[in-house]
Amino acid sequence: MRPPLLARGVDPAAVDHVVAALTFASLRGTDSHGINLFPHYCRVVDSGRINPRPVFEFARTRPGAATMNADHGFGHHAGHVAMMEAVALARENGIAAVAVADSSHFAAAAYYATAAARQGLIGLAFTNADSLVKAPGSARAFFGTNPVCLAAPMADEEPFCLDMATSMVSWNRVLNCRRNGLPLGAGWAYDADGHPTEDPAAARSLAPAGDYKGFGLGMMVELLCGLLTGGPAATELIAMYENLPARRGISHFFMAIDLDAFVGATDFPQRLSAMAAAIRALPALDPASPPQIPGDPEKHTAARRATEGIPIDAQKFDEFLAVDPAFAEAVRR
Amino acid sequence: MRPPLLARGVDPAAVDHVVAALTFASLRGTDSHGINLFPHYCRVVDSGRINPRPVFEFARTRPGAATMNADHGFGHHAGHVAMMEAVALARENGIAAVAVADSSHFAAAAYYATAAARQGLIGLAFTNADSLVKAPGSARAFFGTNPVCLAAPMADEEPFCLDMATSMVSWNRVLNCRRNGLPLGAGWAYDADGHPTEDPAAARSLAPAGDYKGFGLGMMVELLCGLLTGGPAATELIAMYENLPARRGISHFFMAIDLDAFVGATDFPQRLSAMAAAIRALPALDPASPPQIPGDPEKHTAARRATEGIPIDAQKFDEFLAVDPAFAEAVRR
Repeated sequence: MRPPLLARGVDPAAVDHVVAALTFASLRGTDSHGINLFPHYCRVVDSGRINPRPVFEFARTRPGAATMNADHGFGHHAGHVAMMEAVALARENGIAAVAVADSSHFAAAAYYATAAARQGLIGLAFTNADSLVKAPGSARAFFGTNPVCLAAPMADEEPFCLDMATSMVSWNRVLNCRRNGLPLGAGWAYDADGHPTEDPAAARSLAPAGDYKGFGLGMMVELLCGLLTGGPAATELIAMYENLPARRGISHFFMAIDLDAFVGATDFPQRLSAMAAAIRALPALDPASPPQIPGDPEKHTAARRATEGIPIDAQKFDEFLAVDPAFAEAVRR
Repeated sequence: MRPPLLARGVDPAAVDHVVAALTFASLRGTDSHGINLFPHYCRVVDSGRINPRPVFEFARTRPGAATMNADHGFGHHAGHVAMMEAVALARENGIAAVAVADSSHFAAAAYYATAAARQGLIGLAFTNADSLVKAPGSARAFFGTNPVCLAAPMADEEPFCLDMATSMVSWNRVLNCRRNGLPLGAGWAYDADGHPTEDPAAARSLAPAGDYKGFGLGMMVELLCGLLTGGPAATELIAMYENLPARRGISHFFMAIDLDAFVGATDFPQRLSAMAAAIRALPALDPASPPQIPGDPEKHTAARRATEGIPIDAQKFDEFLAVDPAFAEAVRR
């Protein structure tokens, strides 16, 4: 029984990163960016959107800066290669950035930023995405959910990681509600007329986080991604689940900061851990829900799912069977 | 009649930047970070908090990274010097960062990021601030209003500038309401028990923008500021209007990105201007309020105030008279 992406001729290094990125996200409870995406990824290899054997073109333009063309391969692979290059350049230069053009959906930004933090650096990861976030003052969407993500090493604990869509929630979370017949949360989405809605079927655009502030952050991310690479941006991007044969040309932007160029790699993680402890120890409004830092819910879920496994809903399970005939046959036996 | 900061022995270069930063903010309508702060700045020179003749200590730790000790001088001066250094290093390295320790309140982050954008680069400016933003799950404040700011060059228009507190509003805006007897907006602030309040006198903490997302962004900024410099952070920082003789040790973090290390300095501003035009032309929900991009309200106000002048309320005017005897005498005549 050959794994479905390898059976489709995808470069084994790319398969490794797709699988690692999706299980990383699912273990941490980010079901919108985890294994639920796997059947879609198989379909976009079949459709020709994803190049199964990309040749990454890399250009170091300055001591601390590089551009990379991902040749329409999997974003998970391109993103990891680019972030590791940013780490190497940052060790020489103190800070470095790598801009990636002609890539594809890379799932959770945390996967890349955390990889830099595991090497002892601060990692920042950004990506653009297709137009889904309502522009303040209009019923129309303009920017994608364009996440901001920063990870940093802690002492005696997995890295700190802030990974947030600049919308209140991701579109994949709306789709998960739609599939499971659940209502949306208040303030997540708008209908076609620009009115707030909690009906996942009526949702046409997402609310920016903090209204115009999230919209501004989404624009900041698009400047660093689509505009810095020269790739398609905002409304120019093809939607993830439409026109599957079309290549999307997603752009990413990665930064790494070497702690030793600043306060040092010993002091920083210790102070960050002390800061986290102070926040977690703040008097709680509800003793059952003590204050947390970004990434805490994900760490708790990861600890639980490491033993309990990753849940998957029935419709998604059927999609897995559909993209993997050998797995389907094995299940039926 | 000697200007009040020069009369107090402040380095003329510092005075230039204090005055330029405050009038820049006031012209753009950011009254919370504009000339309203001037009497306070005079008082903290008198109190000894601000070093009137600082000696900046600069260390280039790597080709693209530097640290600077601001010797407790005015943050406006230190910030400008640090950002210009980041611009110079970014031109060589593609991207650069300068971390500033032992500084003081620098007013609006836009002043520094915009200065980089006027040189043709992307500028990012961050600062920490004393603990005022409520931690989700607790009634207590933990991080300051820790702004995120990015500016970038546009074609045929003043730079794009996103400059946002990671709280819904700044504390100085709450104080302006308190002074003028105006209620706070809904969702701006909390009272001592952690309940939402619109009473400026009862407000004890600020709401993070987008709830836990703004809190996470505030933590990201503190990692780049207090933690990367090794200076005081979050609840360790002395409040702006308390204990005036005490030096605060505010930290800033500046980054510059050279467009020519990526897509190029011609393509980027043109595409950014086209993107801005597309957002402004989106169908408006209210034709009287067309969609805007970050910085548009400030640009409109700046155009108006350039001819109409900067308004100032009566109580603040009295504070100006109090810190500047010569000005008071001139007004009385």
